Amino acid sequence: MSQGPQFVGLDVGGTTMKAAVVDDRGIPAIAVVMDTLPKRGQEAGLETMCECIRRAVAAANLSMGQIAAIGVVTPGPMDIPAGMILDPANLKPWLNVPVRDHVHKTFGILTAYQNDANAAAYGEYWVGAGRESKSMVMFTLGTGIGGGIIIDDRILEGQHSHGGELGHTRIELRDGRACGCGRRGCLEAWGSATSVVKRTREALETAPDSSLLDERVKKGEELTARVVFGAADLGDPLAVRIVDETAYVLAVGATNMMHTIDPDMIVFGGGMTAAGDPFLEQIRHYVRQLALPVPGAKTLVRFAALGSDAGFIGAAGCGRQLYRRHKGLV
Amino acid sequence: MSQGPQFVGLDVGGTTMKAAVVDDRGIPAIAVVMDTLPKRGQEAGLETMCECIRRAVAAANLSMGQIAAIGVVTPGPMDIPAGMILDPANLKPWLNVPVRDHVHKTFGILTAYQNDANAAAYGEYWVGAGRESKSMVMFTLGTGIGGGIIIDDRILEGQHSHGGELGHTRIELRDGRACGCGRRGCLEAWGSATSVVKRTREALETAPDSSLLDERVKKGEELTARVVFGAADLGDPLAVRIVDETAYVLAVGATNMMHTIDPDMIVFGGGMTAAGDPFLEQIRHYVRQLALPVPGAKTLVRFAALGSDAGFIGAAGCGRQLYRRHKGLV
Repeated sequence: MSQGPQFVGLDVGGTTMKAAVVDDRGIPAIAVVMDTLPKRGQEAGLETMCECIRRAVAAANLSMGQIAAIGVVTPGPMDIPAGMILDPANLKPWLNVPVRDHVHKTFGILTAYQNDANAAAYGEYWVGAGRESKSMVMFTLGTGIGGGIIIDDRILEGQHSHGGELGHTRIELRDGRACGCGRRGCLEAWGSATSVVKRTREALETAPDSSLLDERVKKGEELTARVVFGAADLGDPLAVRIVDETAYVLAVGATNMMHTIDPDMIVFGGGMTAAGDPFLEQIRHYVRQLALPVPGAKTLVRFAALGSDAGFIGAAGCGRQLYRRHKGLV
Repeated sequence: MSQGPQFVGLDVGGTTMKAAVVDDRGIPAIAVVMDTLPKRGQEAGLETMCECIRRAVAAANLSMGQIAAIGVVTPGPMDIPAGMILDPANLKPWLNVPVRDHVHKTFGILTAYQNDANAAAYGEYWVGAGRESKSMVMFTLGTGIGGGIIIDDRILEGQHSHGGELGHTRIELRDGRACGCGRRGCLEAWGSATSVVKRTREALETAPDSSLLDERVKKGEELTARVVFGAADLGDPLAVRIVDETAYVLAVGATNMMHTIDPDMIVFGGGMTAAGDPFLEQIRHYVRQLALPVPGAKTLVRFAALGSDAGFIGAAGCGRQLYRRHKGLV
């Protein structure tokens, strides 16, 4: 039986959105998923968000009157204080969508708005891998690299809603690998799941006979980061090299955060963490090599604990923060 | 006539220490300077700190009883919460020196302790270049590169007193230029005044006849960052290239902070800012090229305003923060 005030967290992605009621301890009820269908336009999108919230409340056997606050999170670029998503690449043709105000007006319930990667980090900080940390930096490894920074229970939003855009910190001085953002040398260009596949393809072109993966690619079968990590587990030298390089790059990203934010904990989340403990150990190995002695020895480096639920749990956590500030509890 | 509570700020460096009384508006009285003489040992060092504080109070025509709080800042590595400097390279043979407790016990006055680069950033945030910003990141360019991050009037100390160690963020993925810290590819290895001289020497070795500076070096005259910047002002192609490279590197550092902290303002301080507005414009040019559109357009990039006073003014500001928390004013 859930206790105390109840919150709804809604995590809006380019393909689907996911919502659930989450209680004051961070424990979620049954989650509901709906298609985002951005092409149907932003009015339809806003209505789908509200419907997803309604369904989540119904799935928890509650009524809207029992909800203390709502949190909605979306990809950027966005204006967090204005509660508005601007011109998101993954949600075309949406433009300047007043997400927070629409949800707030629809339900008449306190509504928080946040960046999805920031919210995932907050979810992990609140009840996941970072639950015992005071400050935490999270990298979410997927198509790109999302980042979130939490210090003393506060999300580092930044003054222009660009706090924690860690995928676009630069780790190559000159030229560098092309990034999806149009720049070069970004962490994302080296450390994302997309980059694992891209670097593997490049390596196969240079030395096609050196890998188990060559035949697979020649057959036209899909090459994914999971396949590359699987081949590395089987000892395929090319895949082993790509995975090792990825661990090194992510350790550079982690180390730079140790020398900037100096958190208690660095967390890696996203699909690539399915590679498991050996990959985590490789990252830790390089962190110890790269970091200054004190943070290198003391900062915990972990994988995320909440999986793809981190987004809506963190969203609900943002709603909870707003509720607690509103009530004068913090 | 100074108003309100009075604070003492003491900035302890490897060669000298500097202290002054600073009033509640951040305006300093006459500063006093004493030799640190670390080789005389840490007991003597602690006594010199106390004497320097006494002289600063006397120079302001005040008595110790009129001082509301003291702030002392030193180079690291340190344990900020413990008020202790650990094993500073610039203050050998000092080891685990209880700076804050000694000063506090000597005077019976509230005493704050902070990292010197953090304090310089706080001084600029309080009453210098960043006085109108909500959040600010400062790089102090000298022998090395110090960093300080201020968000909503709070110094980002980090969990292990390594917050804002921005000189040791990595900007080269592999190998990279050797840094004084023993690592490679650090921002400091490219962007410090020391690096300007080192890169100039390297360039002269490769192409000795290409620069005005060649004759100077052959005569055994001193080569400093100031000399290199001066030669660039005269149009010397080699010096122009070195200065341009330095501006680019500092823009990479600034951009990485825009994508991590996303402050209102980035401030560069230290001796190299004597190069003046053309150098600042070069940094801004590369920032616009390197940063994501919104922070690139909106983040102010400035030179520091307080010069070498930033350290003791910031130290006094840390004392003032402690006093205000103690009085329940914040």
